[in-house]
Amino acid sequence: MNFPSKLIENAVEELAKLPGVGRKTALRLVLHLLKSETENTQSLSEALVKMRSEITYCQICHNISDSEICNICANPLRDHSLLCVVSDIRDVIAIENTGQYKGVYHVLGGVISPIEGIGPADLNITSLVERLPQSEIKEIVLAVSPTMEGDTTAFYITRKLRDFPVKITTIARGVPVGGELEYTDEITLGRSIIERTSYSK
Amino acid sequence: MNFPSKLIENAVEELAKLPGVGRKTALRLVLHLLKSETENTQSLSEALVKMRSEITYCQICHNISDSEICNICANPLRDHSLLCVVSDIRDVIAIENTGQYKGVYHVLGGVISPIEGIGPADLNITSLVERLPQSEIKEIVLAVSPTMEGDTTAFYITRKLRDFPVKITTIARGVPVGGELEYTDEITLGRSIIERTSYSK
Repeated sequence: MNFPSKLIENAVEELAKLPGVGRKTALRLVLHLLKSETENTQSLSEALVKMRSEITYCQICHNISDSEICNICANPLRDHSLLCVVSDIRDVIAIENTGQYKGVYHVLGGVISPIEGIGPADLNITSLVERLPQSEIKEIVLAVSPTMEGDTTAFYITRKLRDFPVKITTIARGVPVGGELEYTDEITLGRSIIERTSYSK
Repeated sequence: MNFPSKLIENAVEELAKLPGVGRKTALRLVLHLLKSETENTQSLSEALVKMRSEITYCQICHNISDSEICNICANPLRDHSLLCVVSDIRDVIAIENTGQYKGVYHVLGGVISPIEGIGPADLNITSLVERLPQSEIKEIVLAVSPTMEGDTTAFYITRKLRDFPVKITTIARGVPVGGELEYTDEITLGRSIIERTSYSK
């Protein structure tokens, strides 16, 4: 694609580096910015740069935060004996939005993936192990994705935590609420039968 | 959606103002920027601000340009007797990418649309009429979309140019190359039969 202006071309190239944004989408965004007020582009750019340069990570749980200790870790009303281990910040946001979890978190920053060259040393696993003796944690919920990499990571963490007197659990696998039985894959349906729960519980 | 950080929230809100970008997509883009180098966010922001503040429009054809006269209008190798009228900068890029057009352009900046409150005075029609006497233009190709608004705009321009000794044409309507006859709508197929072209031409 040829552009009538170098400025447009640069802006399109930069936007097209974002995941899921191709050159056609990037051009649409650029032309939208061109049509709207200059201030809009200014405030977008400032918000991005400010976000990238000023963001900090919580020193306890590695979640993104505006201060040294994040809102969740600093909140005395949360259950500090319950710890949820997730791979990504996105998972924290997703679990928070359910409104069902009142414990604290630990963000690994990824999962063990030999193909992508991510080993245990690249994740926040050491800080998780160091966190345990000083804390009142009684239960650790491993909430990683049920993929090969996620299961490997969960297995690795379980072994690392073997010597600590904590209960280790994982989130339930099963048929999604509102999901049709006939469209559920065999492995999920199989596990949902094995791990059936009692109505009277 | 609740965010663990005000900085993230601001960045997401700003990105979500772009067309076709929702809050979930915006969050994905933000987390991508957070994972990549600070320089990437810097250069993206700079490209956008620079593009928005420094972009100029060609004084002749109203196309976007890095200088007062755009590359196309300034090019002596282009056919300055052939003028293509389009509604948008995107159309210029699309026609240029075909490699089939060697004339010059005139960008209207939209089409007449009473519903959106866009009248002839909001478009670059006056400058089109003023452009004619001083130029060597022999043919004007109206390349506006075949919609109600596009047809109205084309009709309005045709009437405005009635007194000038120029030939007015429009781009061919018909079955797209590679398109299946049976899936073509009736109006397009009907017009493609009426405006059939000769093989021997």
